[in-house]
Amino acid sequence: MRYAEPISRLIKAFSRLPGIGEKTAGRLALYVLNAKKDYVKELVESLLDVKENVRLCSGCMSFSEADPCRLCSDPSRDAATICVVADYKDMVAIEAAGSFRGRYHVLHGAIAPLKGVGPDEIKFEELVSRVRDGGVSEVILATSFDAEGETTALYIKKALSGFAVKVSRIASGVPVGGSIEYMDPSTLGRAMDGRREA
Amino acid sequence: MRYAEPISRLIKAFSRLPGIGEKTAGRLALYVLNAKKDYVKELVESLLDVKENVRLCSGCMSFSEADPCRLCSDPSRDAATICVVADYKDMVAIEAAGSFRGRYHVLHGAIAPLKGVGPDEIKFEELVSRVRDGGVSEVILATSFDAEGETTALYIKKALSGFAVKVSRIASGVPVGGSIEYMDPSTLGRAMDGRREA
Repeated sequence: MRYAEPISRLIKAFSRLPGIGEKTAGRLALYVLNAKKDYVKELVESLLDVKENVRLCSGCMSFSEADPCRLCSDPSRDAATICVVADYKDMVAIEAAGSFRGRYHVLHGAIAPLKGVGPDEIKFEELVSRVRDGGVSEVILATSFDAEGETTALYIKKALSGFAVKVSRIASGVPVGGSIEYMDPSTLGRAMDGRREA
Repeated sequence: MRYAEPISRLIKAFSRLPGIGEKTAGRLALYVLNAKKDYVKELVESLLDVKENVRLCSGCMSFSEADPCRLCSDPSRDAATICVVADYKDMVAIEAAGSFRGRYHVLHGAIAPLKGVGPDEIKFEELVSRVRDGGVSEVILATSFDAEGETTALYIKKALSGFAVKVSRIASGVPVGGSIEYMDPSTLGRAMDGRREA
């Protein structure tokens, strides 16, 4: 015997979610079985709502209910500065920090040749288009400082070299709250190279 | 800015699942956003299917599409022996082991006074009823060997002492594949106390 058929089916569906193994999926399915109908209704409705009402903003490629999104249609934001991020969550993190008042471009991925992800698999051409259309004075590369993020930043920098646009990279260095003692040598090297007048 | 409203709503729904924090819920929501419509349709349908078509078997209290469940209506299984488990998953685990051919009783919880879970919060009265109705010769207590499982086993043993029924507890000892060296003292004590002729 295994679980009753509808339970097995739900476990299978849950276990396709990232980071959810079969054991965890089983725990989630059991939770759903015991949960109030209201909760399951809410979960189902929010799943459908997200799939039906969230699309990509044709400007910045971020997820949004409206097209253009709220940020792209906000006249108080500087349309000449584009901050390029790999994922929507990175954009949300930068917005939460609150210091950037320009627009975004979400690539929905980073270039990773070993995983078969090239520029065509991400929203790279859309970025080039925005720059080509004009009105952009600076592109800030805010991809992560891991191999894929660095590769992506380098690739975009090269691709935009023919345009009259300033391409910058956010700073790499010791994070706020970080102890020098525990930093890895590459971070310390970056921090040293990127030093500014105190 | 935070996430678009439908995304926040989905994150909130996901984060109510056990063991899913806000970060993980965010990751799951993003996965859903990027997932094929077919996948989301399957997840939604299986959630609804489970809530609509799975009920408690009125015999053993396990989750089942049919009532009585397949095990309770199987004439080849011994109706006189009831194996009591705390959760449905414990029943599935014992069934997977394949050595038990009687019936089950799922308590849907274990007695935990500190968490406010007493006999009334679990399917205890239903077990007493089954014993009272007769035809039961042995009740095997297969609750876990932690504080809650032991408390539950003890409570049931006492409660059934007035009935002409044998109440047994599954064996506690060194698990198969376990090294004596690494066993905790209580397990070794239990294993010693429960020794049988070799």
